[in-house]
Amino acid sequence: MTLEEALRELDALQKKISAYDHALGLLSYDGLTGAPKGTAANRAQSTGVLSEELYRLQTGPETAELLQCLEESGAALDRKTQRTVYLLGKSIRQMRCIPVEEYVAWQRLLVEADDVWHTAKERSDWPLFAPVLERVFGTVKRFAGYCAPEKDPYDYWLNEFEEGTDRARCDEFFDALHAGIVPLLERVRTKPQPDCTVLRGTFPVEAQERFSRRLMELIGLDLDHVGLATTEHPFTTSLGSHLDERITTHYHTDDFASSMFSVIHEGGHALYDTGSAEELAWTVLDGGVSMGIHESQSRFYENILGRSRAFSAYIFPVAAEYFPSLRDYSAEDFYRAVNRAEPGLIRIEADELTYALHIMVRYALEKRVMAGELAVAELPGEWNRLYKEYLGVDVPDDRSGVLQDSHWSGGAVGYFPSYALGSAYGAQLLRKMRETVDVDACLRRGDFAPINEWLRARIWQHGCLYTPAELFRNAVDEPFDPGAFIAYLTEKYTDLYDL
Amino acid sequence: MTLEEALRELDALQKKISAYDHALGLLSYDGLTGAPKGTAANRAQSTGVLSEELYRLQTGPETAELLQCLEESGAALDRKTQRTVYLLGKSIRQMRCIPVEEYVAWQRLLVEADDVWHTAKERSDWPLFAPVLERVFGTVKRFAGYCAPEKDPYDYWLNEFEEGTDRARCDEFFDALHAGIVPLLERVRTKPQPDCTVLRGTFPVEAQERFSRRLMELIGLDLDHVGLATTEHPFTTSLGSHLDERITTHYHTDDFASSMFSVIHEGGHALYDTGSAEELAWTVLDGGVSMGIHESQSRFYENILGRSRAFSAYIFPVAAEYFPSLRDYSAEDFYRAVNRAEPGLIRIEADELTYALHIMVRYALEKRVMAGELAVAELPGEWNRLYKEYLGVDVPDDRSGVLQDSHWSGGAVGYFPSYALGSAYGAQLLRKMRETVDVDACLRRGDFAPINEWLRARIWQHGCLYTPAELFRNAVDEPFDPGAFIAYLTEKYTDLYDL
Repeated sequence: MTLEEALRELDALQKKISAYDHALGLLSYDGLTGAPKGTAANRAQSTGVLSEELYRLQTGPETAELLQCLEESGAALDRKTQRTVYLLGKSIRQMRCIPVEEYVAWQRLLVEADDVWHTAKERSDWPLFAPVLERVFGTVKRFAGYCAPEKDPYDYWLNEFEEGTDRARCDEFFDALHAGIVPLLERVRTKPQPDCTVLRGTFPVEAQERFSRRLMELIGLDLDHVGLATTEHPFTTSLGSHLDERITTHYHTDDFASSMFSVIHEGGHALYDTGSAEELAWTVLDGGVSMGIHESQSRFYENILGRSRAFSAYIFPVAAEYFPSLRDYSAEDFYRAVNRAEPGLIRIEADELTYALHIMVRYALEKRVMAGELAVAELPGEWNRLYKEYLGVDVPDDRSGVLQDSHWSGGAVGYFPSYALGSAYGAQLLRKMRETVDVDACLRRGDFAPINEWLRARIWQHGCLYTPAELFRNAVDEPFDPGAFIAYLTEKYTDLYDL
Repeated sequence: MTLEEALRELDALQKKISAYDHALGLLSYDGLTGAPKGTAANRAQSTGVLSEELYRLQTGPETAELLQCLEESGAALDRKTQRTVYLLGKSIRQMRCIPVEEYVAWQRLLVEADDVWHTAKERSDWPLFAPVLERVFGTVKRFAGYCAPEKDPYDYWLNEFEEGTDRARCDEFFDALHAGIVPLLERVRTKPQPDCTVLRGTFPVEAQERFSRRLMELIGLDLDHVGLATTEHPFTTSLGSHLDERITTHYHTDDFASSMFSVIHEGGHALYDTGSAEELAWTVLDGGVSMGIHESQSRFYENILGRSRAFSAYIFPVAAEYFPSLRDYSAEDFYRAVNRAEPGLIRIEADELTYALHIMVRYALEKRVMAGELAVAELPGEWNRLYKEYLGVDVPDDRSGVLQDSHWSGGAVGYFPSYALGSAYGAQLLRKMRETVDVDACLRRGDFAPINEWLRARIWQHGCLYTPAELFRNAVDEPFDPGAFIAYLTEKYTDLYDL
């Protein structure tokens, strides 16, 4: 095979992989959005078949020959192709470690687990979910053993979600956060809480939907390429390439802010994915490089921008066009209400200050289950105990506790730390961005273009061309420093609570 | 290969085909429902790849060997397997006649054509659509030549949508309809029209949506397996198997009856598909056998049941729960209004009497384009001329004319006659059903169970096990007789218009 032929085949292979990913992603997305309730078994059937076809395509002899040829060409390849070959080779080698029957069974299990989780959450029925979750953790652990027998299984998965991360790095990071956040939260709790009545009322879904579209346009999403749907748990996904992105939200008629910040959060993910350079479409370099960097974007838009005083000043009168009850309040009332720091039960509704504590609970639990120190059956009890210990709250039922998130049923063990890492990355990105962009002035006039351009140039356009660490370092011109996040929180909450 | 092995492989092959069909069907469904506007190119990319994979699976040497082994086993196979081998063999032989590049290009063209049609219809922009439609007709004609060079291309496609149909049979059938309908319509037009103000008003989409679900449950659909969405043009599709069925509708806020009858029409399709015997799931025998039989079910529910006096008596007070303005009218007002016979512009809004005339226009046009007697460019002019000739109406714009339907952009040339055949099948099914089921009594109490059970036993459960002609003959114990339809129309409209 000549190099030219190999490059053509590499292009065709990536397009094939993208198409299967598109189909499998769409099957999953459909299951979470429009599909009737009783169709999971039918979806599992098709998911199983297509996963197997994708598995055989990627692990077959033709692909092996192609990769060998490209790996041998090494230095003759440009940087983009080198990175492509590296990432593709890595993922194919991992896939080869997993027997095909187990790989297919895993894909089918995830369809079933999602289905069972929805019902279990609705009914707050942990015993219904426990046996499925048992199989999820069992498979996750077994696959880590297949792919990296030399590694601790939880370290393996942490590294899958954020290259370069392991328990040691997470422990250190969370210790630093804990040390910074807990004393700050204690000081906050000595102060009176802001009045939150601005957030109370009845907010029709239809008005919230129109407001969602307005927000999406405002933050700079191209609605010709980014769709919106409603689901139990908000999420973002690319279908086939960054040219078709979907975000979802969940409307509560007694709380417009919940969906508002979900839309901005998922919108941040979508900005990142759709910001990939045009030519990366249908390649393995397309879209976000890691979940940590992904969450750095989503949480940047949701919190650092979305929950800022400057943006509140702009968006509050806009929101009042959709929700007339807001007209009795000021933008400052709104700003204070959406930044009320108070330990609660639900991660996705947590304020910036307590949010990382929710993550620490999940991290502690995952680590112990993966190490075999905690049985899946013990998760609800330990969840509730840790919520009391870290956040001081009593969990009334599993729906508001261990069943609240969709990650484990989606097979994503080791994902949660990405949220906290992302929050910390974001604060450092802000510090750097402020050197050249007057962020507050942009937000006060609802102009996201300069902010988006900064992030597009430094983060989005590169897709997966760099490792997360390289990408981040290039973006901020210094190593990762969680201190920026603590400093950001301290400044923000000192002002808000007059500490 | 032993017969036992071959049967196992046949099962696996059908599951694979179902999974690809699921993925391709879902890509198309998504494009028509939730997908953002600018994503057709991305969808075409994935559709092209997956179509090629499916093509290679079906035309590859392993499948050929399997089919040969099964065909040689002939008499040793049970009836179900014989029919499976026959249908699979036929479709694969046809596929083999089409070069892979052309097959893939066709699948991609359909994604593009649908996208362009939506825009063209919205803007009433025929010149935008014409070049794409040119390519659609060109491909349809070319493929007929590949698959059946001995046949007239339009005959080929008529037979694809309704086995056993060709131009000669259609000509005869439409002549009979024309001879029966036109004089009846002329008599109707000498009479005063019913008052239709019952249908006027403002009907919020949200209330219409709730009413749709009520209708779906009422006619006997299992909402755990049948979903509802909104699209420009209502349709029904199975995804992967009859275990996941989707229907769509289109809401007009000034007209609740339009969506009401779309839901019942599409609901009829869905009852047929989901009524397949359980064990047919993921086989080529699953779902409806032909478009003619399919339309016989959808138009049976929409018109023969849905627009009957007996059902009006039941459903009108129910509709009034959702639409308070109806409370000033009677069920009889409603019955007369939804059966107002008057030539109009839009096929899917036509009454039962004039409906077949809309089909005859399309049939005449398709026939001439396929014979090379009419250029695609001449379609709007001829469309308008024939609407004047057949229906006596002037077409004001292409949006209400040649651009109104989605069939041609979907590649379905030869489909339209199925609607008229289906209407006629339905009248004969009613005549037979009445021998053992008191249809009116069932409808007056909103009880579809006896009707559904009759159709399930005689039509639905059999899937594709029989040819359309065999199936229909077994259902009514006599050959097809369009006279039943003329008699049905004559009786109904004589009563309605006091002829």
